[in-house]
Amino acid sequence: MADVYDVIVIGAGPTGENVAKRAVRGGLTAAVVESELAGGECSYWACMPSKALLRPAAAVSEANHVKGAVGARLEVSGVLARRDKFAHYWKDDGQVEWLKNAGADFFRGAGRISGERAVKVADAELRARQAVVVAVGTRAVVPPPLAGVKPWTSREATSAHEVPESLAVVGGGVVGCEMAAAWSALGSRVTLLPRGGLLERLPGFAGDLVAKGLADSGVDVRLGVGVTGATRNGSVTLTLDDGTTLEAAEVLAATGRAPRTDDIGLESVGLAPGSWLDVDDTMRVTAVDGGWLYASGDVNRLALLTHMGKYQGRICGDAIAARAKGKEPEVRDRSSKTCIPQVIFTLPEVAAVGLTREQAEAAGHAVRVVEYEIGDVAGARLFADDYTGHAQMVVNEQTKTILGMTLAGPGVGEMIHAATIAVAGQVPLDSLWHAVPSYPTMSELWLRLLETYGL
Amino acid sequence: MADVYDVIVIGAGPTGENVAKRAVRGGLTAAVVESELAGGECSYWACMPSKALLRPAAAVSEANHVKGAVGARLEVSGVLARRDKFAHYWKDDGQVEWLKNAGADFFRGAGRISGERAVKVADAELRARQAVVVAVGTRAVVPPPLAGVKPWTSREATSAHEVPESLAVVGGGVVGCEMAAAWSALGSRVTLLPRGGLLERLPGFAGDLVAKGLADSGVDVRLGVGVTGATRNGSVTLTLDDGTTLEAAEVLAATGRAPRTDDIGLESVGLAPGSWLDVDDTMRVTAVDGGWLYASGDVNRLALLTHMGKYQGRICGDAIAARAKGKEPEVRDRSSKTCIPQVIFTLPEVAAVGLTREQAEAAGHAVRVVEYEIGDVAGARLFADDYTGHAQMVVNEQTKTILGMTLAGPGVGEMIHAATIAVAGQVPLDSLWHAVPSYPTMSELWLRLLETYGL
Repeated sequence: MADVYDVIVIGAGPTGENVAKRAVRGGLTAAVVESELAGGECSYWACMPSKALLRPAAAVSEANHVKGAVGARLEVSGVLARRDKFAHYWKDDGQVEWLKNAGADFFRGAGRISGERAVKVADAELRARQAVVVAVGTRAVVPPPLAGVKPWTSREATSAHEVPESLAVVGGGVVGCEMAAAWSALGSRVTLLPRGGLLERLPGFAGDLVAKGLADSGVDVRLGVGVTGATRNGSVTLTLDDGTTLEAAEVLAATGRAPRTDDIGLESVGLAPGSWLDVDDTMRVTAVDGGWLYASGDVNRLALLTHMGKYQGRICGDAIAARAKGKEPEVRDRSSKTCIPQVIFTLPEVAAVGLTREQAEAAGHAVRVVEYEIGDVAGARLFADDYTGHAQMVVNEQTKTILGMTLAGPGVGEMIHAATIAVAGQVPLDSLWHAVPSYPTMSELWLRLLETYGL
Repeated sequence: MADVYDVIVIGAGPTGENVAKRAVRGGLTAAVVESELAGGECSYWACMPSKALLRPAAAVSEANHVKGAVGARLEVSGVLARRDKFAHYWKDDGQVEWLKNAGADFFRGAGRISGERAVKVADAELRARQAVVVAVGTRAVVPPPLAGVKPWTSREATSAHEVPESLAVVGGGVVGCEMAAAWSALGSRVTLLPRGGLLERLPGFAGDLVAKGLADSGVDVRLGVGVTGATRNGSVTLTLDDGTTLEAAEVLAATGRAPRTDDIGLESVGLAPGSWLDVDDTMRVTAVDGGWLYASGDVNRLALLTHMGKYQGRICGDAIAARAKGKEPEVRDRSSKTCIPQVIFTLPEVAAVGLTREQAEAAGHAVRVVEYEIGDVAGARLFADDYTGHAQMVVNEQTKTILGMTLAGPGVGEMIHAATIAVAGQVPLDSLWHAVPSYPTMSELWLRLLETYGL
C-alpha cells in the first residue's frame, strides 16, 4: 500500500526544502525524496564550499589594499578546513533534521515518477493527493573533448583536499571564474580557457575587470581559446584550438549544466527524460495535464541560482497549498525572468540584477544606460586604496524606473540588493533621489548615477 | 561698490558646495565664502579622516575573523599617513579649484550678513539678487568641566599625529564611539565615559553590540559615568561622578555640537547669534521675511550628517534656481525628518535609517517590529566566523511599508541603502518579497526579516 502525502518533492536541495516548508506551513503533508545528500548541490558542492574558499582570499585581498593594514595572507590548510566545516563534512544529518523539524517526511533514495501523482523511491510507493514537485537541479556537463580524462567538475573543484600544482579551467562562466580565483589564491598555477570572453551574459566591463583581476593575481587568462582534445598520463595534456597544447596537473570542466531529469521517470507521464521542464508562474509544468506536476529551481531553466530556486520553491509551495484549498494562488513568480540578482565572488566581485541593455531593448523597452566609475566615489577610495570598479544602470525611459544594474569592483556584493529592491519595487528615479546614501559609504554610487542621469 | 551674485553661500563645506553647484546648474551666479578650509569639517576633521583611520582597523579585523586568513595587523604610521592623504594634508587647493570649475566664485574670510541680501567678507561687500544661504555647520561643544584643560575635540581626534599612551573619551555618541575604536586600534589605552549608554538615539542593541565590540578590543567602557571636573598637569586627571578619578594622557570631548552662527551677523536680520536656524522644506529660514535667507546642513539642526547636508544643499540650490525663474520648487525635502540614514564605522558597524519604534509610535503610526539575528544568515557566517549582529525592522502596519531599519554587525554599512530605498520609495512588503536576495550574501537578511514578519 502506498504512503499518501499532499505533496511529494523529489530533491532535497534548497529548492525542495522551501517547497516542503511552505507546503507544510500551508497545512499540507509533505514527503521529500533525495538520492544523495539532503541540502543539495548548494550545501556541499556549490555555493557554500565555494564561498567558504573564496571569502578568506577576499578578506586578505581587501586588507592588503588598505594602506596601514599589513601582513594579511592565506593559510591553505585553514582555508580548506573552513571549507570542510561549511560543507558540514559532506554529512547531511543537520539537513535531514531540519526537514523533519519543518514537518516533512524524508525518504532517501532515487525518486522516480511512476504515473500521475505517483513516485517510487527504493521499496516505497508514494502517492500525492495534490502535487509532485521536481526539484532535482542540475549537474555539470562534461564537454566531449574532456570526457576521456575524468576532469574535475564543480563538485571536485569545491571539495578537493589537495591543491593541484597546476590547474586548467575550461569555461569562462561563473564556475570557471570563481574556481580559477579560488585555486589560484590557494597556490595553484591556473590557466583559464574560456571559449570566448568571461561572464559573457553580463555587460562586457564585468568580464574585463574580472579578467584583469585574475591576471593580476597570477592566473593565465587565455580569452577565446577552446579545447579540442585531452589525454591524461598522470597530468593532463590539453590540445587547444590555437594550435598549442597545455599540460596541467588537473583540469576543471566548467562549461555548463544539464538537468538531472534523465532517470526520474519523466517518460511515465509523456515527457522526455533528460529534458528541462517548462513551467508557468506558479511552477506548474505546462506540458502535463491535470496540474499536479510542478518543477522548481534549476530544472525549469529559468534561473540557475540557489536563491532563485528557493524563491520559486516558496512560490510553488504556497501555490500548491492555495490550490489545495480551492483558491488560485495570489503570489506568483514575478522575478525569475526580469529581476534575477547574482553575485560572483571573484576579485573583484561582480553583482548584477535585472535586465542588461540588450535584454531590455529586446523586450521592447526604451532605455537609457548610465555608467559611473565606482572608484570616483569617496567611500570606494576609503574602502580600498586605488579602488577600481564600474557601474552600469539601465533605466526604463517610459516609466523612469530601473530595469537593471551591474556592478564590478571590490565589495560590491552587498550593494546589489538595493538595486534589486529598486527593480522589484519599480521605484521611480524621482523617489530614489530622496533615498540619500550615507556618507562616506560606497553606496553613494547611487547619488552619482542619478546625478549622471540628470537629476 | 558691492559684488553682485544671484546666490551667496556662507560656508564651503559639502553642503555649501552642493548649494552652489546646483544653483549654477540652474543658471544662477554664485559666490561661496569660507573662513577656514573649503571642503569643510567633513573633509579635514570629520568623515574623511575618521573613516580613513577606521577602515584599516576594519579590514584587519575582518581578515582576522575569517579562518584561513592570517597575519593581518595595523601599522600605525601607515594608518596615520593614509589619514593625512585623505585629509589632503589640510590644504584646500583642490576644493577651491572644484568650486571654480563648478562655476562659483570663492571668497576666503569670515562671511557676515550685514542686512537683507548683503554679506560682508574681509574688505568685500557682496549683494545677492536671490538668496543668501547659511551653511556654516557646527563645532564641538566642550562641556564646562573640561573647559579648563583644552581637551581634544573631534578636530584633534581626527587629525592628531601621535598616539596618546592613554585617552579618555567623554561622550557615548557617534564621535565618542568611533574615536574610541580608532585610537584603541592604534594602540592607545582608551577609557570611554558616556553619561548614559552608547548611541542612545538608536535601538538599545546597537549600543550594546558596540559596547561589547569596544570592550573586546580593549576599551574600558564605563557606562553611565559622567565627568565633574578635570585638571591637566602633563596628563589629565578627570573627576568622575562615581566618586573615582581617572588619569589619561589625553581627553576627548565628544558631547555634542553647536551651530557656528555666533559671528555671522544674524543680529542684523533680527535673529539671535549662535542660534540654530529653522527652515521649511526648501531650506528657507522661516523666521526671516522676504524669503531670501536659507540655511542648509547641520545649521538647521534637522540632521547633523554630511550626506543630509549635501541632500539639503541640492534641494536648496534647486529651490533658489526655481524661484529665480518665478516657479515654486517641485523637489522638496522629504527625507530630513523621516528617512535619515547613518552608518557608524565602529567594530561592529552600525547602520540605521528611518524611524525607530519610539519615533514611529510618537508620529502616530501603528507599527510592528521584526527582529532577526544577522549571524543566523548563511552569508554572514561566510563573511565572518562566529558572526554576531542584530537587525530590527519597523513596519507601518497600515501601509505595509518599512518605516525604519537598524543593523549592527560587521560589514553592515553597505547594506543599509537597500533599506533607505525601501523607506524612501515606500515599497510595500508584498513587493519586497519579490526582491530576492542573492545567495549567499548577508543581504539574505531581508528574506529572513520578511519571513519572520509572516510573509
